[in-house]
This record gives sequence, C-alpha cells and structure tokens, in this order.
Amino acid sequence: VLTNPRSERVRAVRALSRRSVRSRTGRFVVDGPQGVREAVRYAARDVLDLYVAAGAAARHEEVVREALAAGVHVHDVDDAVLAAMSETDAPQGLLAVVRSPSPTLADVLAREPSLLVLLASVRDPGNAGTVVRGADAAGADAVLVTEGSVDVLSPKVVRSTAGSLFHLPVVTGLAAEATLDALRAHGIRLLAADGAGGTLLPDADLTAPHAWVMGNEAWGLPATLRERCDDVVRVPIHGKAESLNLAMAATVCLYASAGVPRNTPAGHGGRG
Amino acid sequence: VLTNPRSERVRAVRALSRRSVRSRTGRFVVDGPQGVREAVRYAARDVLDLYVAAGAAARHEEVVREALAAGVHVHDVDDAVLAAMSETDAPQGLLAVVRSPSPTLADVLAREPSLLVLLASVRDPGNAGTVVRGADAAGADAVLVTEGSVDVLSPKVVRSTAGSLFHLPVVTGLAAEATLDALRAHGIRLLAADGAGGTLLPDADLTAPHAWVMGNEAWGLPATLRERCDDVVRVPIHGKAESLNLAMAATVCLYASAGVPRNTPAGHGGRG
Repeated sequence: VLTNPRSERVRAVRALSRRSVRSRTGRFVVDGPQGVREAVRYAARDVLDLYVAAGAAARHEEVVREALAAGVHVHDVDDAVLAAMSETDAPQGLLAVVRSPSPTLADVLAREPSLLVLLASVRDPGNAGTVVRGADAAGADAVLVTEGSVDVLSPKVVRSTAGSLFHLPVVTGLAAEATLDALRAHGIRLLAADGAGGTLLPDADLTAPHAWVMGNEAWGLPATLRERCDDVVRVPIHGKAESLNLAMAATVCLYASAGVPRNTPAGHGGRG
Repeated sequence: VLTNPRSERVRAVRALSRRSVRSRTGRFVVDGPQGVREAVRYAARDVLDLYVAAGAAARHEEVVREALAAGVHVHDVDDAVLAAMSETDAPQGLLAVVRSPSPTLADVLAREPSLLVLLASVRDPGNAGTVVRGADAAGADAVLVTEGSVDVLSPKVVRSTAGSLFHLPVVTGLAAEATLDALRAHGIRLLAADGAGGTLLPDADLTAPHAWVMGNEAWGLPATLRERCDDVVRVPIHGKAESLNLAMAATVCLYASAGVPRNTPAGHGGRG
C-alpha cells in the first residue's frame, strides 16, 4: 500500500495535470470509476498504472479484476495518496495513468468514415468533452481537433467525455485548413455549424459521408474555414434564445445525422 | 460612482449568492452582459438595480440606454466594487439585481402549453441552466422544476441559461407527483426520458401536447414518477457511450419535439 502523499511517484502523477508534462511524457490521467472502467475495457494496453484507494477496492472490484487480468499494474494506495494525485476535490477512489493515444487523420480516413466532427479552436473543456461524448453516442467515426484548441487529455475534458475518449479516435493538433482540404479530397462533405448559416438543419443534405465543422465558442469559424465548407447549417431557434451552446448544437447536429442513412461516395467504400 | 467595495450595499448584493438570502429577499443577481441584456429587454420592471463598471459603460452603451429608458436604477461603480459584488473570477462589467420571477403552474397551464420540460431533482447547475436554454431554443412553453432541485436563481444556473431565464416561465418548487397528475389532467402527455426506456425517440408519439420528464443525474426517475408517465423514451445510442448527459438528452428530445407539428387535445384550445 502506497502511503506517502509526497513521494516522487505521487508528484509525477500530479504533474500530469500540466499540459507540458503530458506532452513531454506522452501520458495523461483518467480520474474516477467511469473513465477508468472504459480505459481498462477499450485501451488496457495503454493503462500504465491503476491506483485504487482503500475504500474503493470493494466497490469497484470488477474493474480492478479486469485490469489485473489485462496485465495492468494495480497499486493499492491510501486516501491521502489518491487525493494528492487527483485534481478534483472529491476523488472517487480510482485513478489511472494512461499512455496518450495518437491516432492520425490517415488512420481515420483509411476506415472510410461516414460521420465526423471537427472542433476548430474550441477552448472550453466542458464543451470539448461533451462533444466527444455526444459524437460517440451518435455513432460518429472520430472527432478531429485542430491545433489551438483545448487539450483533450486535460483532466476536465477527460472527465466530461465520460469514457468516450476510449471509444472512438480523437485526433488532435490538426492544421485546420489542410484538414478540411484532406477531408474534401476524400469525398467527405463539410458542413459548418453556424447560427448564421443559410441552411436550416432539417433541410441539410446528410445522406453523404460528412463532417460537422464547429468553430470557437466566442468568434465562430473564421472565413477561411467557412469558405472551405460545402454548406453552412444552422440549428433552428424556435424561441427567443440567441443560440445553443456549442456542445448542444454539435449534439443536435450529430443526432440529426445519426437518423439519416448514408450513401457511399463514388470511389470510396464507405460503410453506408 | 460607487467606490467602496466594503459598503453595506455591496455586501447585500454579494449575499445574494446564498440561496437563503435570495429566498428571504426575493431577489437574485444576473452577472454579465448577455444575461443583463435579456433581463432588461424581457423583464425590465423586475430589474431593481443595474451596476456598470467604469470600463464597461462604453462597451455596453445600448443595454445601459435601454435600462435607463425603462426606468431602471443605473449605478456607475468602479471595478473593485463590481468584483466584490460578483461571484465570478472575471466579472464582465455589468451586474443586475433582479426581483425573482414567480410564475405558477396555473399560469403555465392557462396558456395551453404544447411543449414542456420538467426537471425532477436535477442537481447540477450547468445541466439545469443548459436545459432552460435548450428549452427556449426548441420553443418550449415553460420549464418546470421540482422541489429538491438546484435553485435556478443561483449564479451558475443563471449564467448557463444565457438569458433564457427571461424568455420563458421557469416554475420552481413544485411537488413532483402532484405536478405530473395536474399535467395529465390537463391533457398533456408525459414522456419520461430515460436511458432504459422501451420506446426509441424516433418512434415516440410527439404529436400531442407533451412534457419531457427528466430525473436526477445519478439515480434517474423514481418509480413513483416513471409510473405516472405515458411512455418512457430513450435517445438511441449508436456508439459505445453509456448515455448522454442530462442536458444533451433533454436538448435532443426537445429538438425532436420541435420538429413535429402538434395537435390540440380534445377540450383544450392548445396552440397546435
């Protein structure tokens, strides 16, 4: 049982709350039972260490057993150690250090995606995490994130994905313009979601493979990106609200897509 | 210009971050230009005081002019005073003290609503506020909130509504069972939104006036409420996510409703 909250190991885990440290070490923290369970289930080989607080072992017996069966290093720790490792005020007894995933756009395109979402300079951790969760729920093939966006491996984003981070590829650090060009060249329709769009969501053509392109919370999509899109679509506002927040707009768009069967583009063997 | 951040007035405003004080005084705080603008526009008679920081007056000239025209007491304050009044780390120059709205269920029913959402024991401020914003955007007639839920006049909820709090009635403190019975007696179909529901959202009958009934984030709807509902509906999950978060599920359900024309129930002159 690890009992020293000031040990080098504990400091090293805690340091992963900093983006620079995550980037240098290629590791990040998954805090809490839901995220840990999905990490163990879908990415066990990337789970480097699992820390289990005294009181949590019985409560989360199944996850711990799965982790041990998958060869994960499981460490018993006392509550003070877990609290020192965790960024949250109320740690929930399980915390994992996980190797940062590094899927590429090429990986995603090779699987002939039919539904994607691209976050361009999205800054709010809750929005980014919620979009990943919504994309997963709506059956999207991947989430693409441009450079200049929030780090999806930051504790707050990881928490808001509720484990979905391990369910679908999340490609990060992308150059926005080049990525849109690559998607277009691959036959993927680009739909900007924008409150000022000329096409209402119910009228948008969602029958081809497509990507929803979401801009920054405050300033939206810059013209250079909007111009690259095939259509600019707005979620209809029926009441007096000015807009939906980014995560809600993305989820409504993705669920509209989920309800429409998609054709395969000429020359690409999409999953339809 | 008010310059003393320790004045009695400043303390009284700051005290409104406490639920007991809001409840006793019948007042709450709206912090930031978006909320203040909507309060002035839709509820000017309830805006008791508007505080404007030195740097913000020029930036928000139009809102201040509208407030003055509506007879609101506008006070110039320096930044230290606004910071002392505000609960946020980065106050945005405008803060209003507003009389708490007190719409009743009877008011809402008298207007023959065709789309409602009821939050039963919802606890997270971001969820509650986002549902109010989503309900507004989807054209719902009101949001109903049971006793035991988060206080919708708390600063975090007010902020997440992004002004929608002033666009549609938000009835609070309701007894859950009696409210469901009253809605049913009024010819309103009750649809529980629940990940374990037997009816998929695309198959739900949304053609009659109805209310979406959302349970607590952690434990969902208790059986006594679920049994009172006409149907239990789940948003389809296409990927590996376990669920959507409450605000996203509510928004997807409300937008599904928004896309369907509604009939008037026999004996009630609904707006269709």
